[in-house]
Amino acid sequence: MAKKRTVSRPARRLTGRDLDTFERIKKLADQVCESAELNRDPTFAIPSRTLSNVRYCRAKKILEMGTATSLRQLFNLNQAKSYMQLLLIASGCNSLLYEGKTTSLRGLYYMLKHSIPGAGEPTFHDQSESDPIIEDLEVTMSALREELHLYAEKRGDLVGEITLVDSGDTIRCDRMGSGGYGIPSIVESDIIQFKDCKAKFILHVEKGTVWQRFNEDKFWKKNNCLLTHGGGQPSRGVRRLLFRLHEELGLPIYCLLDNDPWGYYIYSVIKQGSINLAYESRRMAIPEAKFLGIRSKDYEACGLSSNVQITLNDSDRKRARQIAQYPWFTGKKAWQQEIAKMLDNGFKLEVESLLSKHISYVTEEYTPKKIHEQDWLD
Amino acid sequence: MAKKRTVSRPARRLTGRDLDTFERIKKLADQVCESAELNRDPTFAIPSRTLSNVRYCRAKKILEMGTATSLRQLFNLNQAKSYMQLLLIASGCNSLLYEGKTTSLRGLYYMLKHSIPGAGEPTFHDQSESDPIIEDLEVTMSALREELHLYAEKRGDLVGEITLVDSGDTIRCDRMGSGGYGIPSIVESDIIQFKDCKAKFILHVEKGTVWQRFNEDKFWKKNNCLLTHGGGQPSRGVRRLLFRLHEELGLPIYCLLDNDPWGYYIYSVIKQGSINLAYESRRMAIPEAKFLGIRSKDYEACGLSSNVQITLNDSDRKRARQIAQYPWFTGKKAWQQEIAKMLDNGFKLEVESLLSKHISYVTEEYTPKKIHEQDWLD
Repeated sequence: MAKKRTVSRPARRLTGRDLDTFERIKKLADQVCESAELNRDPTFAIPSRTLSNVRYCRAKKILEMGTATSLRQLFNLNQAKSYMQLLLIASGCNSLLYEGKTTSLRGLYYMLKHSIPGAGEPTFHDQSESDPIIEDLEVTMSALREELHLYAEKRGDLVGEITLVDSGDTIRCDRMGSGGYGIPSIVESDIIQFKDCKAKFILHVEKGTVWQRFNEDKFWKKNNCLLTHGGGQPSRGVRRLLFRLHEELGLPIYCLLDNDPWGYYIYSVIKQGSINLAYESRRMAIPEAKFLGIRSKDYEACGLSSNVQITLNDSDRKRARQIAQYPWFTGKKAWQQEIAKMLDNGFKLEVESLLSKHISYVTEEYTPKKIHEQDWLD
Repeated sequence: MAKKRTVSRPARRLTGRDLDTFERIKKLADQVCESAELNRDPTFAIPSRTLSNVRYCRAKKILEMGTATSLRQLFNLNQAKSYMQLLLIASGCNSLLYEGKTTSLRGLYYMLKHSIPGAGEPTFHDQSESDPIIEDLEVTMSALREELHLYAEKRGDLVGEITLVDSGDTIRCDRMGSGGYGIPSIVESDIIQFKDCKAKFILHVEKGTVWQRFNEDKFWKKNNCLLTHGGGQPSRGVRRLLFRLHEELGLPIYCLLDNDPWGYYIYSVIKQGSINLAYESRRMAIPEAKFLGIRSKDYEACGLSSNVQITLNDSDRKRARQIAQYPWFTGKKAWQQEIAKMLDNGFKLEVESLLSKHISYVTEEYTPKKIHEQDWLD
């Protein structure tokens, strides 16, 4: 058994979340020392981030990582570099925790890039070398990168009937004018706390331009809700905030996305998680999220003109067939019909196509009616 | 002379800006009627948006459109369609003004797309047909598209020592937590008014990830300023807001961008305007904006390691030489040296490269020192 090591603590008070992450990093470091003291080869077992190790859990209705791991050994010429890189990344994140600072993946890459004395080799040639190691560390420690004090480019906005506290500042999201509250990358509970929430649900729309239409028409005020967008595929910050709002405040989430394979995919990621980052699903995926539209049937149901059709191309058709085969869609008749109907239509529809009816048709008629009639896909 | 036409007014009260835009649209429509009544061919003179009609005004230090115009005639087979499209766009914007609503370029395209009765031809085949006509209308009416109630995808955030009123909501930009205030697309004075401003200058950074570093270190609080980013090339909303803050509140603007041709170009657009949209320069360009860095000399001056160098490729070198030939850079020795030094270095540097010194080196040392010593390019 290794000797108990004492580790100097930072001057500032670590938050509960930071203390937890800190302990996990320490445990990782302890493993190395223990191996050395026992004259064993230092080795980590890293959960495999391969497609074959991702499975859809029907009980929880989310994508999960399987139990497969691969060994990473220091005394193996093929693995020594990535073994040391893993420890370097862990040490960088440890410094961030100590200093109470956060940075981007690119920032961490720059912070840790240096030439190894003697060898002259750089620790990383470029960022494409450090990013996967960060993901390795996340799965090994079972920590989100946000917990390692790493953030992504921020994207997406929020407006509606809730008051938040963000880093000590009270933010009334119902008084944000036309601009809205820019959703941060890190939205963990030590940074953002929820206060008075009068909203009854969340409407999540795909694009900023659609969000602006809904905000201008004060949809969130008339319908007592929150209004978010993710600027396309929602960032991790947006997904994590939606998750927390759903989980902690019990708010249902309705997604208004384009009627095309990309819209289906965005919904799939919000609902079940992404295949690439399956290990984070349990803290990001929202299996109860509903798909409100645009639906393949809406072309006829809303009486749209043929002018708004966008012809499907080969890659759309291929992608749609792939998505129809996702295990969480295969068992669902309504989803199979939805995708088949789009393929049968031969065209896709954007949310903006509803503006051809009337500029506020989507905010005043389409969306309220869908929600009221519970006309959504699950 | 045409008879005076009476035009029904909308129920809601138009703002001063809207009334002005409304009158311009009316004048355009009047031209058509006047031609008809005088048995003349209906014709518009549209300022040319060609490169040959853009010139750099050395007195005002901005890009301007020249006086060249081209005729667009209804009774000309080659021009009849775009003539009618121009009126259709004008009529669409007129409706938006009436209803007091705004929409995206794509939204307007959908609103106006229909089959012409009898002919069966669509008014626009796709958005690439309607966008240039919107620009034609802007130059013809000498109105920004924001004044026509058209918005772009929103991008960029603001935080700092100012209180704004946005659509009636009071927004304290010094209490925006980690997220910041999402800069809207339309920031005209009837939507956004400036209240108490304690800031002494604006620091504009290129990317959201760098903005987060500065916001986390509360740079704006310690240095009594505003902090903005544009998520790369700043959107029209960001440029127009910077312009208004500079023009109305007299705030100097310092730009912290990457040391590469793209960074130079972003600065050039903020300062002189863009070549493609030269007609908007006088309401967007800020000739007094300063280029703070990253400078080509900083590699040595800051003692950076060779690990942060990113080798220039052929297209970087070509682009750098083009930018050196911009008329507003040709006469400036310091700029010629700056670009020559980068070419001589053979590498570019990102703002994030300063993180290799220390995570807060850029916010606590580099930037305050540059500002204090007035070490910038003009």
